[in-house]
Amino acid sequence: MINDIEIIKTESSKINEVDFDNLKFGSVFSDHMLVCDYKDGKWQAPKIMPYQPITLDPSAKIFHYGQSVFEGMKAYKDADKNVWLFRPLDNCKRLNISSKRLAIPELPEAYFMEGLKALLELDKDWIPTNDGSSLYIRPFVFASGEGFHASPADEYKFIICTAPSGSYFSGEVKVLIEEKYSRSANGGVGFAKAGGNYAGQFYPTQLAKAKGYQQVIWTDDNTHEYIEEAGAMNIFVRINDTLITGPTSDRILDGITRKSIIELAESEGIKVEVRKLTVAEVVEAAKNGTLKEMFGAGTAAVVSPIAGFGYKGTDYDLPKLDETYANFLKKRITDIQTNKVDDSFGWRFKV
Amino acid sequence: MINDIEIIKTESSKINEVDFDNLKFGSVFSDHMLVCDYKDGKWQAPKIMPYQPITLDPSAKIFHYGQSVFEGMKAYKDADKNVWLFRPLDNCKRLNISSKRLAIPELPEAYFMEGLKALLELDKDWIPTNDGSSLYIRPFVFASGEGFHASPADEYKFIICTAPSGSYFSGEVKVLIEEKYSRSANGGVGFAKAGGNYAGQFYPTQLAKAKGYQQVIWTDDNTHEYIEEAGAMNIFVRINDTLITGPTSDRILDGITRKSIIELAESEGIKVEVRKLTVAEVVEAAKNGTLKEMFGAGTAAVVSPIAGFGYKGTDYDLPKLDETYANFLKKRITDIQTNKVDDSFGWRFKV
Ligand SMILES: Cc1ncc(COP(=O)(O)O)c(C=O)c1O
Ligand SMILES: Cc1ncc(COP(=O)(O)O)c(C=O)c1O
Repeated sequence: MINDIEIIKTESSKINEVDFDNLKFGSVFSDHMLVCDYKDGKWQAPKIMPYQPITLDPSAKIFHYGQSVFEGMKAYKDADKNVWLFRPLDNCKRLNISSKRLAIPELPEAYFMEGLKALLELDKDWIPTNDGSSLYIRPFVFASGEGFHASPADEYKFIICTAPSGSYFSGEVKVLIEEKYSRSANGGVGFAKAGGNYAGQFYPTQLAKAKGYQQVIWTDDNTHEYIEEAGAMNIFVRINDTLITGPTSDRILDGITRKSIIELAESEGIKVEVRKLTVAEVVEAAKNGTLKEMFGAGTAAVVSPIAGFGYKGTDYDLPKLDETYANFLKKRITDIQTNKVDDSFGWRFKV
Repeated sequence: MINDIEIIKTESSKINEVDFDNLKFGSVFSDHMLVCDYKDGKWQAPKIMPYQPITLDPSAKIFHYGQSVFEGMKAYKDADKNVWLFRPLDNCKRLNISSKRLAIPELPEAYFMEGLKALLELDKDWIPTNDGSSLYIRPFVFASGEGFHASPADEYKFIICTAPSGSYFSGEVKVLIEEKYSRSANGGVGFAKAGGNYAGQFYPTQLAKAKGYQQVIWTDDNTHEYIEEAGAMNIFVRINDTLITGPTSDRILDGITRKSIIELAESEGIKVEVRKLTVAEVVEAAKNGTLKEMFGAGTAAVVSPIAGFGYKGTDYDLPKLDETYANFLKKRITDIQTNKVDDSFGWRFKV
């Protein structure tokens, strides 16, 4: 536990400028932010202050060597105005797993958890209550230490910002199964939420967009025969009545939504297989009609049904079913997240 | 060509605070920097201003998605106080190759070249003249546009800073041939000078340092059987009297020093092979005494002889020869760079 967090409150809230009925994703920011500095070999006490610009030397290593990691979480408010998080300690632990791989000093869990709670208490009016909206939370750590030597920085900043947000995707999601580019290497940093993993996806995703797809489904960099994950979601495929998702590895992010969906589905009697999944198998299932659904799972995208996929120049449409695992599981998980139903898993966390 | 670059000069130079006889690498910065903003869909006119902090919104995409690329160059001053660069247009072109892969808008070549020349003219007193020292030049581009959506930014900054620098390595360099971690994927961003490629190397390099090695030699991520490159250098191996270096690929940076060394060596009658090189072959050559030299080649490290390497728990020492290709080629290239000899290649560029 940490002692009282120093709080400097804003003198003029911006909340009245926000149209909570027409929120985009992650583009307006709440009044306050949490800032914690790593210097002199340790993480200093976190502080809460008005949301404000960051000033850095041009030689700060974040500009040159991509030393940064982040997390994505959401806060929900129920009908009684209680504030809820979903498995926040898992985000905290994953942030440290990412940090370790990027040679960033790990953060004390209490700084993350207590800091986050204090920030949410202060900015709880920013949590939207409309269906499908939530307060998106962005904890991140980056190298603020200076110098042009390609080596780890000696100073870092851990910051939490929050953004009232609507849904991540608008409209139908079609995906392109990638044959040329890749997201991560064996023995690389793909399992970490490292900044550099995202920038590397932008160009191939732009190429896919120009062809009419919203996302790329990454395949392994060596053979491009195995389905890995999407830009910000893990991928599930339903063949007949079995739900299949690939195993995590050092190339794939261990998604919190993914593992929750696996548990939820199993507890509802849905057969789940966690195993390597080839593109060939999915194409074959699409052709013979056994491919019923594909969907992505992630904090930002929640559960996002996929309407079709492209592969080697051919487009495959997914059937339009009345009852889908995707909709069923999406409702189950959001009902738990927003405190509409009991949570037998112990995932919900009261702020 | 661009019109006159706006120049705001510093009011108090810091040059007298610098000990030019004891320069580290990239840790003191010259008086001015060049800044060029991308906004409203185009690169705005570059400006030169006093070296100063950069202010960014906490949601600037550089902090979250690693969208950044950079270059590394050096300026030299000869006995007549002329200022020289080495193949600068190649750095400019490579910056744009990197940018394209990272979905960053490409920069007009004139902004880079004319901006750099104007900056060097202004700060030419910062170019050290001691042997082995030079003015290290760091052009970089990063995403300053805002928002938590994982997609390319709409605003960027291109900046050039310079730092009078001593040598990159101090002392003997021993390397570890990596068996587990990797630097880049097939179809990934390894060929780009993208920030994220460097952060990913820090942790494996820390592990190697703890075992007494200064650098990691990366191998392919799939089999770890092929020698690729080092953290900031391409790698050359001399077996008997043949110099061997791996081919470039989408996993390997196309080093300007590497290609210059290949040309130089060939022009001096040294047999050069550009071909895939296995770890097994190097180990075998070390065992049977045909492995004469290994060295790294890069702008920062110039030509850095490698004293020995570790692989699968065994250390292999390189012989200590009186006359080495490394020393010979290092002298040839630095003599050209610093205008001590004729440059029949047309590499030297007068500022
Ligand atoms: C690459 C990637 N895969 C999967 C996910 C899903 O993870 P989570 O469910 O923990 O949000 C994310 C992030 O949200 C991601 O960035
Ligand atoms: C990964 C990597 N390889 C090789 C090099 C050498 O390239 P150059 O000779 O152009 O400096 C560098 C950079 O300097 C590098 O960062």
